[in-house]
Amino acid sequence: MLRVPYDDLYAALVRATERLGLSGERAALCAHLFAETTRDGVYTHGLNRFPRFAEMVANGSIDVNAEPTHIAGDAALERWDGHLGPGNLNAHAAMERAIALARQFGIGGVALANTNHWMRGGSYGWQAAEAGVFALCWTNTLPNLPAWGATTPTLGNNPLVIAVPRPETGGRHVVLDMAMSQFSYGALASYSAGGKELPVPGGYDSAGNLTTDAAAIEASKRALAIGYWKGSGLSLVLDMLAAMLSGGLATHEIPRDPARESGVSQVFLAIDPSSFAARADLARIADGILESLRLAIPVDPAHPVRYPGEHTLQLREENLRLGVPVDAAPWAWLQALSF
Amino acid sequence: MLRVPYDDLYAALVRATERLGLSGERAALCAHLFAETTRDGVYTHGLNRFPRFAEMVANGSIDVNAEPTHIAGDAALERWDGHLGPGNLNAHAAMERAIALARQFGIGGVALANTNHWMRGGSYGWQAAEAGVFALCWTNTLPNLPAWGATTPTLGNNPLVIAVPRPETGGRHVVLDMAMSQFSYGALASYSAGGKELPVPGGYDSAGNLTTDAAAIEASKRALAIGYWKGSGLSLVLDMLAAMLSGGLATHEIPRDPARESGVSQVFLAIDPSSFAARADLARIADGILESLRLAIPVDPAHPVRYPGEHTLQLREENLRLGVPVDAAPWAWLQALSF
Repeated sequence: MLRVPYDDLYAALVRATERLGLSGERAALCAHLFAETTRDGVYTHGLNRFPRFAEMVANGSIDVNAEPTHIAGDAALERWDGHLGPGNLNAHAAMERAIALARQFGIGGVALANTNHWMRGGSYGWQAAEAGVFALCWTNTLPNLPAWGATTPTLGNNPLVIAVPRPETGGRHVVLDMAMSQFSYGALASYSAGGKELPVPGGYDSAGNLTTDAAAIEASKRALAIGYWKGSGLSLVLDMLAAMLSGGLATHEIPRDPARESGVSQVFLAIDPSSFAARADLARIADGILESLRLAIPVDPAHPVRYPGEHTLQLREENLRLGVPVDAAPWAWLQALSF
Repeated sequence: MLRVPYDDLYAALVRATERLGLSGERAALCAHLFAETTRDGVYTHGLNRFPRFAEMVANGSIDVNAEPTHIAGDAALERWDGHLGPGNLNAHAAMERAIALARQFGIGGVALANTNHWMRGGSYGWQAAEAGVFALCWTNTLPNLPAWGATTPTLGNNPLVIAVPRPETGGRHVVLDMAMSQFSYGALASYSAGGKELPVPGGYDSAGNLTTDAAAIEASKRALAIGYWKGSGLSLVLDMLAAMLSGGLATHEIPRDPARESGVSQVFLAIDPSSFAARADLARIADGILESLRLAIPVDPAHPVRYPGEHTLQLREENLRLGVPVDAAPWAWLQALSF
């Protein structure tokens, strides 16, 4: 593993996005979102995901020139069309609009159809938290998760993001970013390649037994939803809300080829209670909750209990200080593309 | 198990709520919410829960005369105070207000502080769906769930409800109602009393091993969150939003004695896209998603895959037809109270 300065990663990503046809502020923001994802330790959806992004621009799944447009809604809820533009730019614009609606109405919602993979969902949670507002957002995906009681994948893993701003803390927001599958296929591949057992059951083997053998789950395609029947139900309703509110595609209509997973639907909700809630009171409540978590007796004294986003902040600090870890192959590929 | 006509159960509950000090429409609605919960097969939170409700009225945790009041917010987001009134009446009023805000603004939110256990959370999802709007709502609870990596319960099981209306179907809405624990303590007690093994791991035993032995989990108090670290994080952020938006208590501040679990915080979000989404288009999208689920290959051909709420509708129909199942002891208790 190589470590490169954050600014070098960002600069190479700007040049690469320009090569793909983006320019100006859009190239900068797209590169920024990819670079920050790697900086924050979500390696699967930063630099390592960029070659897929380039492939989808090349095969026409992503239209780099498309910008999202307002379709309908004249109050606190709006429907937007992403016109198959870059998923991270579309999602960032949708959350920005939801934040503006929340500032005006206290709560605002944007449903976005015809967009593309938003890469790291957490990006839009951090975006809202940095703006000082609460947010919930989610996306549907191609079918990759069997419903509870089914053997074939008809649900998406439909990541859900929930953000709690803590403006007094210099950015120590609480941001949950969780897919509905217990493990992603990327995580399963990493365990099976390393010959390592999953820490908890991650799916069923082909004989129908719960297993911690990642390779067996890759073979059966029977990954497990979080909480068995519960995550299965949650995935379904998130898909229904995303497709129905946006008027876009549902999971069962999204192409199953990951290189052509396009036209997904997303929802962005932002909540701004600042018209009636004093910042000091919000901070007191948040601090109390996190302090009670910190005081929980840990299973392993060497591992205190953490809140969602806490590990992200540790990795961010470490990666900015030591350089951002990059895998040699995509880093070489990026430099070849961008020079 | 006894079966009694729905109208008899409802009438006995009306008389019982009147004995507790409620009157008129409030007595009728409170009884209605308890009776419908049993009718819909959520036996733990209907009639069987009524003795606890009566106990909490008697010990002062519930003030039957208190009605919720608007505290703040003059647009699509409002803060309400439940003044420790009956939890189901407060929650119903809060969802009714969120629905009205959604009709006006497209989306509306009500954060409710100082309320009591809402009994079946799904009630407020069905309420929104019957009104033709989408809804998300959740509550915090007393601490009953260890955070991931902790041995002591500091989180609540914080049920989350998501409702998708299907007005064309004569009430066949999709309503998810899920707590953040894999199994409730009520469910664990039922398995251990019957000497039955849990179908999937439900927690850790006192030695720290994942187990399907319900009695071992009751002893260790280490119930499992759905999806291990994921449900733990989701429970935490739902508590943060509920307490921060409402200005009310967080889980760590709620009395741990179940007979005095009072002052909880809740959030009700309603979404009404009808100003721009044609009903026929919404129905087409919902039907397509549920049809794709129905076509999933089941593990057991005798058990087709179901959507959240589908089993509820089956039980509702059956219980209205055959009579609502009641346990002899609480039914006798209720009749003694109400005559």
